[in-house]
Amino acid sequence: MGMTMTQKILAAKAGLPQVTAGQLVEASLDLVLGNDITSPVAINEFEKSGATGIFHKDKIALVLDHFTPNKDIKAAEQCRQTRNFADKYDITNFFDVGQMGIEHALLPEQGLVGPGDCVIGADSHTCTYGALGAFSTGVGSTDMAAGMITGKAWFKVPGAIRVVLNGKCPKYVSGKDVILHLIGKIGVDGALYQSLEFTGEGVKSLSMDDRLCIANMAIEAGAKNGIFPVDEITLAYCKNRFQREPVVYTADEDAQYDSEIVIDLSTLRPTIAFPHLPENTRTIDEAGTVKIDQAVIGSCTNGRMEDLRAAAEILKGRKVNKRVRCIIIPGTQSIYLQAIREGLAEIFVEAGAVFSTPTCGPCLGGHMGILGKGERAVSTTNRNFVGRMGHIESEVYLSSPAVAAASAITGVLTDPAALETEKEDAE
Amino acid sequence: MGMTMTQKILAAKAGLPQVTAGQLVEASLDLVLGNDITSPVAINEFEKSGATGIFHKDKIALVLDHFTPNKDIKAAEQCRQTRNFADKYDITNFFDVGQMGIEHALLPEQGLVGPGDCVIGADSHTCTYGALGAFSTGVGSTDMAAGMITGKAWFKVPGAIRVVLNGKCPKYVSGKDVILHLIGKIGVDGALYQSLEFTGEGVKSLSMDDRLCIANMAIEAGAKNGIFPVDEITLAYCKNRFQREPVVYTADEDAQYDSEIVIDLSTLRPTIAFPHLPENTRTIDEAGTVKIDQAVIGSCTNGRMEDLRAAAEILKGRKVNKRVRCIIIPGTQSIYLQAIREGLAEIFVEAGAVFSTPTCGPCLGGHMGILGKGERAVSTTNRNFVGRMGHIESEVYLSSPAVAAASAITGVLTDPAALETEKEDAE
Repeated sequence: MGMTMTQKILAAKAGLPQVTAGQLVEASLDLVLGNDITSPVAINEFEKSGATGIFHKDKIALVLDHFTPNKDIKAAEQCRQTRNFADKYDITNFFDVGQMGIEHALLPEQGLVGPGDCVIGADSHTCTYGALGAFSTGVGSTDMAAGMITGKAWFKVPGAIRVVLNGKCPKYVSGKDVILHLIGKIGVDGALYQSLEFTGEGVKSLSMDDRLCIANMAIEAGAKNGIFPVDEITLAYCKNRFQREPVVYTADEDAQYDSEIVIDLSTLRPTIAFPHLPENTRTIDEAGTVKIDQAVIGSCTNGRMEDLRAAAEILKGRKVNKRVRCIIIPGTQSIYLQAIREGLAEIFVEAGAVFSTPTCGPCLGGHMGILGKGERAVSTTNRNFVGRMGHIESEVYLSSPAVAAASAITGVLTDPAALETEKEDAE
Repeated sequence: MGMTMTQKILAAKAGLPQVTAGQLVEASLDLVLGNDITSPVAINEFEKSGATGIFHKDKIALVLDHFTPNKDIKAAEQCRQTRNFADKYDITNFFDVGQMGIEHALLPEQGLVGPGDCVIGADSHTCTYGALGAFSTGVGSTDMAAGMITGKAWFKVPGAIRVVLNGKCPKYVSGKDVILHLIGKIGVDGALYQSLEFTGEGVKSLSMDDRLCIANMAIEAGAKNGIFPVDEITLAYCKNRFQREPVVYTADEDAQYDSEIVIDLSTLRPTIAFPHLPENTRTIDEAGTVKIDQAVIGSCTNGRMEDLRAAAEILKGRKVNKRVRCIIIPGTQSIYLQAIREGLAEIFVEAGAVFSTPTCGPCLGGHMGILGKGERAVSTTNRNFVGRMGHIESEVYLSSPAVAAASAITGVLTDPAALETEKEDAE
């Protein structure tokens, strides 16, 4: 019986010729990830277990990104515990404040994850690396602890939804709009414990940054993982970067899918998820007049170079609305550096935006942009649950960087194309 | 009887020909300042008073800088209250997140304070503007409220210590070392309710950034204010910047001083205030081996262009020690922009430092670099009280930007000159 791409990876990592949906398998791990919030919990479990060592010092990544630079004493203590653990076990891939950035932007960039990998991370957006043709998924801190000790994890092999992408996104439509459209279509539990397997000729029109954004939000449809075929774009991205040899798995022609969804990218519009669920999507044309207090551009979903470039294109020569706090956060120090070198940092600060050091900060209501009662943010992050970014009576509208930047200028949810017209009118 | 410079300003602002130390006067205010922490308290007092208006919409400055970008819901609420007040009374100089920066770096830069002014601010480091030949001092939030209503404040006219500066600072000795040296000499209550009146031929060798740093920390010696004579450097700084006409007051030849201190700038060494008081000073030569976990460069004391340049000179081509979080925070968005344009931002990020958006953040244990138990920071901020930057068992060592940058590289308190020798040795 044919296998999906995800099933092929799991079979290989479990040392089995064949797996089927629903089967329990124990798979070898290429990387185990934790951050400053989840690692301390995993470390406590690790220590309670009586373990005397880790499975591989190069195959664990600990990233201090959520509440850093330390937002309070507790954050400082969590970072310290993680730092001390990394020291004790000589963990190669420990990333401290100032050294790197947001885990899911960082790991692909640093070549720590790539095609054919099996990766777990104690963070729900670990599914991001599916963009590179890896099987990767979020786990609890106890599983992270077990993974650090054994280098293995148990999985129930997921079934799959085949998502066929055709055509090409129009201007101002990006990976974020694709995934928001999909979640709007199937709902936040539309892919529960399934793989979202992206395929179709439209894939080749999506950049790696688009794919990373799409895979990142697979979990927001309840998916176990999201995964993209490995093509020239993937291999070009991995070249001189991925620390191992890419292993390319391809779905069998007769792979079994639970269902199929076809999306014509050329028909998509800038899409926004209204409060309080990522499935509450509307196109910008259906958004109506929604005043915003804050715009956040960044996070593991949209803090990459293309995201910053899209925001800069819109902010260049314009000013952030005086009623709006516009907070832009690059995903990693390398992205920050590149943004300085390309002149984007200058554009942002000139526009009156905050341009901060990499941190998850506002996305999960950590720090660096928390909302008060009744305040509204348009945000390129991945979740808009009640109270996600602050007060339980605040609201988050999920969008692409282009929409967030355009809205920062006008103070209301705005189609970036509308600003273009405005400029032409002025000329 | 002759008057000091401070007394001359107070006499003029009280409409009196003569004032003497100890006298109570009611003076007209040129500016009333509040931030996101103190303004809400003042606004509550304002509202309780039944006041129906403010004395002057251009003479109040409200700056959201302490816990911004909003570190939590409470911070968001405080900012919102201040924002709404500014809206209601159409306050011209309201500075929101992303729009400007740290109050005491911002107000001089924006030309809102200058020679001859009488300024109060609900923040203890309001004494900063003495660098420009203004009388300015920190007050409580109730005084701020009264100031916003009446445009006046009661003062007990201070006596003065005359601080005679001679000579010129050697390399790697800056305004910060001058003021730390002085506080080390007289103690944290050495100038209690007095003016620190700086004078002497050494003044002309001090840049405006040096003077702002020195005046900023007058309060750390208990002073009511610190003040510098107005010279060509002051007037050049004010040109095309200060929004009013500079009024130059000069101390009378026969002014009465309670005491006099003479400092030969050329003999000073890089100076560090050890925990837990700014008076616990040692020169770098007496510091011994002190390991640090964090270096903070920024704040209203040392977040100006010269401070960033001094740090960049040392960090250029070097890497922050992997045991150290190095957090660099420009004072204002203009300084941030200039730092990008001069290539300093690139140097910082390349070195592995955090380069954040303007905020008071770590200085007062707010956010963006809080210390855990037992951790030590070298910091260019102004206070190293117990728990100031986090845990009550953490420690803060106050220094200049040059010392903080050098220490960030080595991981221990370090004389910047030592790195120079190192480089020469390597060549």
